[in-house]
Amino acid sequence: MRIVIAGIDGYLGWPLAQHLASQGHEIAGIDRFLRRAWVDEMGGESAIPVAGWSDRAGYFRERMGRELVFADGDLCEYAVVHDLLASFRPDAIVHLGEMPSAPYSMMDVQHAVFTQRNNVVGTLNLLFAMRDVAHEAHLVKLGTMGEYGTPNVDIPEGFFEIEYRGRKDRLPFPRQANSMYHLSKVHDSANVTFACRVWGLRSTDIMQGVVYGTRVAAMDPSDPRARTRLDFDQCFGTALNRYCTQAVIGEPLSVYGTGGQKRGFLPLRDSIQCLTLALENPPERGEYRVFNQFEDVYDVATLARKVQAVGRTLGLDPQIVHLENPRAEIEHHHYKPDHEHLLNLGYRPTRDMETELADVLSDLIPHRERIARHRAVLAPDIRWSGERRRMGTLPVEEASNTPAARPRAQRAASGASRA
Amino acid sequence: MRIVIAGIDGYLGWPLAQHLASQGHEIAGIDRFLRRAWVDEMGGESAIPVAGWSDRAGYFRERMGRELVFADGDLCEYAVVHDLLASFRPDAIVHLGEMPSAPYSMMDVQHAVFTQRNNVVGTLNLLFAMRDVAHEAHLVKLGTMGEYGTPNVDIPEGFFEIEYRGRKDRLPFPRQANSMYHLSKVHDSANVTFACRVWGLRSTDIMQGVVYGTRVAAMDPSDPRARTRLDFDQCFGTALNRYCTQAVIGEPLSVYGTGGQKRGFLPLRDSIQCLTLALENPPERGEYRVFNQFEDVYDVATLARKVQAVGRTLGLDPQIVHLENPRAEIEHHHYKPDHEHLLNLGYRPTRDMETELADVLSDLIPHRERIARHRAVLAPDIRWSGERRRMGTLPVEEASNTPAARPRAQRAASGASRA
Repeated sequence: MRIVIAGIDGYLGWPLAQHLASQGHEIAGIDRFLRRAWVDEMGGESAIPVAGWSDRAGYFRERMGRELVFADGDLCEYAVVHDLLASFRPDAIVHLGEMPSAPYSMMDVQHAVFTQRNNVVGTLNLLFAMRDVAHEAHLVKLGTMGEYGTPNVDIPEGFFEIEYRGRKDRLPFPRQANSMYHLSKVHDSANVTFACRVWGLRSTDIMQGVVYGTRVAAMDPSDPRARTRLDFDQCFGTALNRYCTQAVIGEPLSVYGTGGQKRGFLPLRDSIQCLTLALENPPERGEYRVFNQFEDVYDVATLARKVQAVGRTLGLDPQIVHLENPRAEIEHHHYKPDHEHLLNLGYRPTRDMETELADVLSDLIPHRERIARHRAVLAPDIRWSGERRRMGTLPVEEASNTPAARPRAQRAASGASRA
Repeated sequence: MRIVIAGIDGYLGWPLAQHLASQGHEIAGIDRFLRRAWVDEMGGESAIPVAGWSDRAGYFRERMGRELVFADGDLCEYAVVHDLLASFRPDAIVHLGEMPSAPYSMMDVQHAVFTQRNNVVGTLNLLFAMRDVAHEAHLVKLGTMGEYGTPNVDIPEGFFEIEYRGRKDRLPFPRQANSMYHLSKVHDSANVTFACRVWGLRSTDIMQGVVYGTRVAAMDPSDPRARTRLDFDQCFGTALNRYCTQAVIGEPLSVYGTGGQKRGFLPLRDSIQCLTLALENPPERGEYRVFNQFEDVYDVATLARKVQAVGRTLGLDPQIVHLENPRAEIEHHHYKPDHEHLLNLGYRPTRDMETELADVLSDLIPHRERIARHRAVLAPDIRWSGERRRMGTLPVEEASNTPAARPRAQRAASGASRA
């Protein structure tokens, strides 16, 4: 297949390019290196050093024996998108080229507007260019499980059959996103749905859980140019990245709030596996389908304890603290999303989170000083209220992960909790 | 009350300003006169001549005995929005300042991107400015019934209680908008919902039907500066505006497709009445509520016959033709939206569409030559497919409004129809 990867320089894009090329696919990429700029803006840098683009392109050429077609451009510039699709004539487009951070989008009005404009306009440009010059291509669009929020019912994969006042329909499942970033993805999903219905485009919209990990099989383990980034600042690091970097520099693992927030997770290698399955099994013309892409559901306090346990096997002994939660989110809630579509296509989940975490920690330990130098970026101060102020540590009794263990009065006082 | 009207120079904004001022409210407005520019871009002009802004402001001063506070600015410029809210300190903000046309948004990628960026960014700027300098104000946001699309079930007002796999929740009703413009309003609704939940803002989101009419009681009928615009080009004219202008210049009333598309309608005076009721009955802090604002549901072929009948009483004798439908939309469908919230607040609907239509036609007849001069803008050529090509006339048997009257083979061939 001929595959365009938008956001090829990113955390997922670079491993995906290597994997797909190793499978024999022709790859083109587009990137304006904004992820590097955003992390820089936050005062951070990738815990694992990443090569510059020309070095990455050189590695690709040497290892794959062919050129990587590359456009140094912004998806928000229509001509760039149009010309890439018109000249490369892709069979598929994997759209990873969005601003992916909730806290970054909540910093202030400028960052909120940037996020929604950047993500919505980039996706619109892709849809129009597909309509006009790549009509048969398959758009694999990276959404997020966060589009759904945390409803009090099970979450289907995109659509559900309902009976309402005696009539039936199959409707998009309601989205209740919880940041300006997550909302931008909701907007995208609505736009892509419409483009498939009206223009006959075909798309797989991936509601992806939180991805963690540093390795995929296609990477040459001996070549540092193969490595992908791992960010740990408050905006571009996930909870697991934060815990892992904290563990290797001897800082306590910081859980936001009680830590009862449940999310779906999957390792990097599984994300690459799933995206590949989606590409190899395209939908029909005009079909818009949704895959919930994750394997296991954990609450974020349990994850901290997992990192703690794995860290101990590697000679680390991290403690766990709970911080005030900078986000306005429900900390105890029902969470049961479906995830059958990818399993039905043959997805074989990596079940062993502990082994993955051990790899991550092992890959981070050599960069301990680099992480320690930037440790300040681990401390969150971007609050959903708009205020910019460091989070305080929660007292021990408030920090318990088990709702039943919390005093009744405290539960009642917690406005965000729907225990 | 102190009320900001965003889009005060528009079709609804100008009558609303007059009405609210006549009720004793203090009014500030903001507008960058983009509606005038868009209609100009389409080659059209308002069928009813409208005064320039300085004349409108002079009329307001003379009639109301006080100044209209006015910001000549774009909602997409944050500083303008922030400064207006900070200095005027409104109790309420009526947000009518968006690009309101589906065909305009479907013209090409540039117009689609402009529409979504303009509408989403303007609304985000209002939400952030409210959060920071007008936290107690009530945002009355103009959405559209088109956000819901045409599901095969009844449409509640914004939210519905569902039971799904044995669990219950109250969820946002799924939106299935049918143009880049309607999608921009869906995006807005999601953003406003989030701002209310997270920041404690209060908002009434108005899912408004199609508004028609030329008069409200607060207008001085003898002063041309009081009049509001009536557009009839393919982008900024509604089906009813098109029929009425066609009737007065002796052109056949052009129904798109079979004409079975059902929509909710309400006269201008009722829209003003409903917006006033919403303002006078604000929601609680943190509350996001949705009003479906329309009174009667008609299909667009029935409306053409109504205009035809009313026209005959005024000495006009319009014929009816059916054109190919430029839109990708279902032409025969269930349509039963709730609209109880405003009735519960005391809304008294104007039931007599015929009298309203007679007023519209009477107001248009003096401007017959002005309309005739611009008659070319009545013919649609913006297709949802992206192609720009004039619509052909449909043969008589295809043009029937009654699905049962159409031959079975034709029904089966119509992909868009869910009869």
